[in-house]
Amino acid sequence: MTKRILIIGIGAGDPDYMTVQAINALNQVDVFFVMDKGVAKEKLVALRKAIIERFVNGHDYRVVEATSPERRRDEGESDYRSAVDELNRDKQRVFERLISDELADGECGAFLVWGDPSLYDSTIRIVEAIEKTGNHAFDYAVIPGISSVQALAARHKVPLNQIGRSIQITNGRGIANGFPNNVDSVVVMLDSQDTYRKLADQNLDIYWGAYVGTPDEILISGKLHEVVDDIVRIRAEARHKHGWIMDTYLLRRSDGET
Amino acid sequence: MTKRILIIGIGAGDPDYMTVQAINALNQVDVFFVMDKGVAKEKLVALRKAIIERFVNGHDYRVVEATSPERRRDEGESDYRSAVDELNRDKQRVFERLISDELADGECGAFLVWGDPSLYDSTIRIVEAIEKTGNHAFDYAVIPGISSVQALAARHKVPLNQIGRSIQITNGRGIANGFPNNVDSVVVMLDSQDTYRKLADQNLDIYWGAYVGTPDEILISGKLHEVVDDIVRIRAEARHKHGWIMDTYLLRRSDGET
Ligand SMILES: C[S@@+](CC[C@H](N)C(=O)[O-])C[C@H]1O[C@@H](n2cnc3c(N)ncnc32)[C@H](O)[C@@H]1O
Ligand SMILES: C[S@@+](CC[C@H](N)C(=O)[O-])C[C@H]1O[C@@H](n2cnc3c(N)ncnc32)[C@H](O)[C@@H]1O
Repeated sequence: MTKRILIIGIGAGDPDYMTVQAINALNQVDVFFVMDKGVAKEKLVALRKAIIERFVNGHDYRVVEATSPERRRDEGESDYRSAVDELNRDKQRVFERLISDELADGECGAFLVWGDPSLYDSTIRIVEAIEKTGNHAFDYAVIPGISSVQALAARHKVPLNQIGRSIQITNGRGIANGFPNNVDSVVVMLDSQDTYRKLADQNLDIYWGAYVGTPDEILISGKLHEVVDDIVRIRAEARHKHGWIMDTYLLRRSDGET
Repeated sequence: MTKRILIIGIGAGDPDYMTVQAINALNQVDVFFVMDKGVAKEKLVALRKAIIERFVNGHDYRVVEATSPERRRDEGESDYRSAVDELNRDKQRVFERLISDELADGECGAFLVWGDPSLYDSTIRIVEAIEKTGNHAFDYAVIPGISSVQALAARHKVPLNQIGRSIQITNGRGIANGFPNNVDSVVVMLDSQDTYRKLADQNLDIYWGAYVGTPDEILISGKLHEVVDDIVRIRAEARHKHGWIMDTYLLRRSDGET
């Protein structure tokens, strides 16, 4: 009668990104832990609840909302690491409380993770850390989901890799000092600084998307130096209009053959 | 009354990886183009047919099987490129014939792509090339699917990235000359040479998986130097037993914190 935790990827935008496996998983859940942070909070919490309501058929469940701790916003790599470490310790305390107080023995609890749980998300790491403390008896499983990277590629109808070549997935920091030297395709997530601007003098194609898979989706592609100003402007407008933005882009060396 | 082509990601192993979007797409299809090659052919064709039968409900469709051209197997990077180019031209001819001869105006045809269509798959590239010839009037869309990379991470319950760090996705060639210098997580696909052996003297963790998401799934993880011989042996045995293998692995610097 141990507890069970499911870390369920729900896809990064369109509720139709839900897999059959994720839907089956939802239908085993007694308690959904719904947590989100920041300005996007309301929208993303609403989306999770819509997914639960749409896909769970007729069994009883509880929804427990928890306030997710927020990261200190500083500059610099080491500050970033320590801020994230601190954040994850805070999150771990919140998750531990949820698992011990909100879940009875033999019950199944779930975290619904935006996109794919293996990509720039701390849920797996935190649940593993809790398991390793040995203070809580539970087992857990991870259900993959369509990531924003795949959603972006599909909506632009573009392969992520050039033939036989590598791909790098990174954040804004990962391209701040230039295009990585050993790949010709780079996917950038978590970039709040329009870092692509720094590479506008290079011969690159960009495939940019915001709110991909949602009714607010915006897609722009072309030679980076030709579309860079459009992206900066449209991104700022969209962010202003919605109060938040989630955007991802693929940068590809144009000199490489496709 | 133009033709419509759907490039549908079906996930990389478990039929339950199918998304709602992919299922809805299947149900609009008049003609499924099923093509596969090599030793894995029978198994993968059977899997596609099982997916069609399971998820299409009660509308009429045709299945057209086509023999996919095979790549010349040579060594060396430039030979590889030209062999792939030649292969893709051959494939393009086959696809063009399917679209012009097997699909009537106003009909919808589909290619079911293993895993995610944006990752190491030529279907998008070929369909785009055909569209660009201007000889065939059709439009097309891409539906994302769960890739083997995500399936691997989910089954090992491991994040792909270290906190705030980058990921590289590559093939065996991409690590043949060493671990890439600007990332600490590397996912290797399409490696028929056990190339991870070359890195066994480095301080790396490996998360290896074969036939991930299928009933034949094998998972091995640990310090690379401790498990390398097991993987080589078990991989060879499995390949011998099944006549073919599909395996993927994540390599991660152990010195980086998780
Ligand atoms: C904390 S990461 C989580 C990624 C998520 N696990 C995934 O698989 O996509 C958040 C980042 O993902 C990207 N992202 C998530 N959803 C997106 C969407 N629908 N459109 C564009 N970018 C998105 C943005 O780059 C955002 O900064
Ligand atoms: C031509 S690539 C196609 C990748 C596919 N589009 C995807 O999204 O996973 C084939 C490679 O994918 C990996 N692969 C595909 N399915 C797999 C599975 N079920 N288990 C392990 N590796 C797999 C192997 O590395 C294989 O060599």
